[in-house]
Amino acid sequence: MARIVQKFGGTSVADLNCIRDVAYRVKKETDAGHEVAVVVSAMSGATNQLVGWASDIGPIHDAREYDAIVASGEQVTAGLLAIALQNIGIDARSWLGWQIPIRSDMLHGAARIESIDGAAISDRMKDGQVAVIAGFQGISPGNRISTFGRGGSDTSAVAIAAALKADRCDIYTDVDGIYTTDPRIAPKARKLSTITFEEMLEMASSGAKVLQTRSVAMAMRYNVNLQVRSSFNDSAGTLVVNEDSVVEKESISGIAYSPDEAKITILGLPDQPGIAAGVFGALADHHVNVDMIVQSASSATKKTDISFSIGRKDLDKAVDIIHKNKAKLDFESVDTLSNVAKISVVGTAMRTQPGVAKTMFETLASIGINLHVISTSEIKISVLIDAEYIELAVRSLHTVYGLDDE
Amino acid sequence: MARIVQKFGGTSVADLNCIRDVAYRVKKETDAGHEVAVVVSAMSGATNQLVGWASDIGPIHDAREYDAIVASGEQVTAGLLAIALQNIGIDARSWLGWQIPIRSDMLHGAARIESIDGAAISDRMKDGQVAVIAGFQGISPGNRISTFGRGGSDTSAVAIAAALKADRCDIYTDVDGIYTTDPRIAPKARKLSTITFEEMLEMASSGAKVLQTRSVAMAMRYNVNLQVRSSFNDSAGTLVVNEDSVVEKESISGIAYSPDEAKITILGLPDQPGIAAGVFGALADHHVNVDMIVQSASSATKKTDISFSIGRKDLDKAVDIIHKNKAKLDFESVDTLSNVAKISVVGTAMRTQPGVAKTMFETLASIGINLHVISTSEIKISVLIDAEYIELAVRSLHTVYGLDDE
Repeated sequence: MARIVQKFGGTSVADLNCIRDVAYRVKKETDAGHEVAVVVSAMSGATNQLVGWASDIGPIHDAREYDAIVASGEQVTAGLLAIALQNIGIDARSWLGWQIPIRSDMLHGAARIESIDGAAISDRMKDGQVAVIAGFQGISPGNRISTFGRGGSDTSAVAIAAALKADRCDIYTDVDGIYTTDPRIAPKARKLSTITFEEMLEMASSGAKVLQTRSVAMAMRYNVNLQVRSSFNDSAGTLVVNEDSVVEKESISGIAYSPDEAKITILGLPDQPGIAAGVFGALADHHVNVDMIVQSASSATKKTDISFSIGRKDLDKAVDIIHKNKAKLDFESVDTLSNVAKISVVGTAMRTQPGVAKTMFETLASIGINLHVISTSEIKISVLIDAEYIELAVRSLHTVYGLDDE
Repeated sequence: MARIVQKFGGTSVADLNCIRDVAYRVKKETDAGHEVAVVVSAMSGATNQLVGWASDIGPIHDAREYDAIVASGEQVTAGLLAIALQNIGIDARSWLGWQIPIRSDMLHGAARIESIDGAAISDRMKDGQVAVIAGFQGISPGNRISTFGRGGSDTSAVAIAAALKADRCDIYTDVDGIYTTDPRIAPKARKLSTITFEEMLEMASSGAKVLQTRSVAMAMRYNVNLQVRSSFNDSAGTLVVNEDSVVEKESISGIAYSPDEAKITILGLPDQPGIAAGVFGALADHHVNVDMIVQSASSATKKTDISFSIGRKDLDKAVDIIHKNKAKLDFESVDTLSNVAKISVVGTAMRTQPGVAKTMFETLASIGINLHVISTSEIKISVLIDAEYIELAVRSLHTVYGLDDE
């Protein structure tokens, strides 16, 4: 007998038939004698409608009211699934964030979980009752409903698995696992049987949108056994595990990409302390998310250049912010590239295997692709290239690193 | 300065534009210096969709899950109206039933309010904040969301007005007041400027569906000044008041009707104690609502007949229940009339004015309408007639009692 947390995303609970199917997936686990807690998202479409209303009602957005509105979607799914389970003879009840409670901080709209009281749910699970938990939501210090941001139900599921000391946290979604790269652009992509938390983190932050980054970080911190699998078939999914548990390490786990990037270069900045803080502080104040940052060596002229990448949709806004701060930043000019994409090679094994970067650069050079920015972490190498080459680059690297399905 | 509770029904908050209009109606009161709490229903259509899902997911209906599902509709409206108010410069926040809290009993789906803690809301109203309260919902002893049944937002509004010691409770709806009868069938129907609680109760239980019966009873008990008015125009509504406050009493306040009734007569029951309890106990156990009841005098044969009216939709079910209890009830036969309607004349003044009933019977006789059952209360006379005559009967009585608009 094990204790399992199952999480079903919006496409898995899209309508009443899907919800009934989910009930049977839960039944499979209870029939096997397991204790089960289920975390559900809103029915797909519901969140978009609620977010649309909250945005359209007027320009002022009180995040606490936004949260009260959008959290209702998961509330509905939880109630419906509890009824569906009862209808196939399974004792079940719904739990809302405030009922458990899942306590969060005050950052409404993107709140972080601070504590979960799993005692009441745990007692009932021991008595054979399935807990159906509304994902995405908690309760903030002011006794208001808080939400955890898009994809927040993944984080709910992992946090609940940690609080309930679950043996497994299964994330059911519309793909059947984590792939070496996006199968839509590289038909030879392979499903990974395992991936480490760190690799998953790098993949997620590099464009693979299967799991919310925060949920992976949390699973790593609390050592939650995570599995990504399909809610539409029974094929084995991908286990996300500790590096220690991976017996046979592959050189590279995957190629991630993010197609809609832009690059900004600020030229002729004074080469003095605090200048990077000035640039990126101004952008952060306006919620522009900066990804790769490269500063070139300062020249004899005591001037320096800073390049960085941002999401393409933020380009105009970012350039505008930089120009508004011209007096303070004291730069000479701004260059932009609006049609670039990021491609990343991810794998824990690169720590011990030299030459991974060299292979990447040589491969891209051999097919005539120019690199605009290079950035590396311990288990990832990312480069910015012209967006038009992204598919070619992904397929070439996938082959070179031996990831192609035979 | 007064303290006002405003309640807006589903058609008044049907879409974002309606919600913005409601915000301006609230602003009118805050601009006048009043303290305002607003109670909102779900956007019209939302409750139907939620109830539909909860019914369609499967035959077993856990009322606690039903409540969690359907209460989400009011939650959404409350959040949206709070944002709409903030957008026109009014400090506002939403309150859900469990946040206030509005404590109810365990009768999920048709729960009754047991207590309301108005302290937190009251403090904020004194600071100028508008409380936007999700109607229809509270929290039951098990810490679950409870709902108050269809039209329950009226009850929420009256209970909150009582808890906040409000000077007025304005019910905004899609009609602009209480009429002497239904204007759709009697074009000469007049809007009443005042009606007493008791008359309103009799009108509501006799088919006038403007206010939920429970809300009127609660307003009477706590002496809440109730006003029914339109959310689509500024015309004066109808005040529902204590009998003492009505200076000039009209003889009759209104003609109510209920078109879809049926009549059952059980013939040849043993004339002994407990037989009525046997009949109506069996029906109540199966949730069949019985309205008018008449028992004829017992004859020398020691047998008696009982006639009563029920909603037409329950006719087959009721007859079935009676036949299943034949052994216990020991009757001879059952007669039914499936196409009857109830018409009621309501007015507190009939207490002191004899002849009201005589006028009713003579009027109906003069136009050839036969009476199947007669039932009277202190301020109401109801008769059951063939359904096909209902419009003729309403118009004739409306004229005879001097209610026609000149």
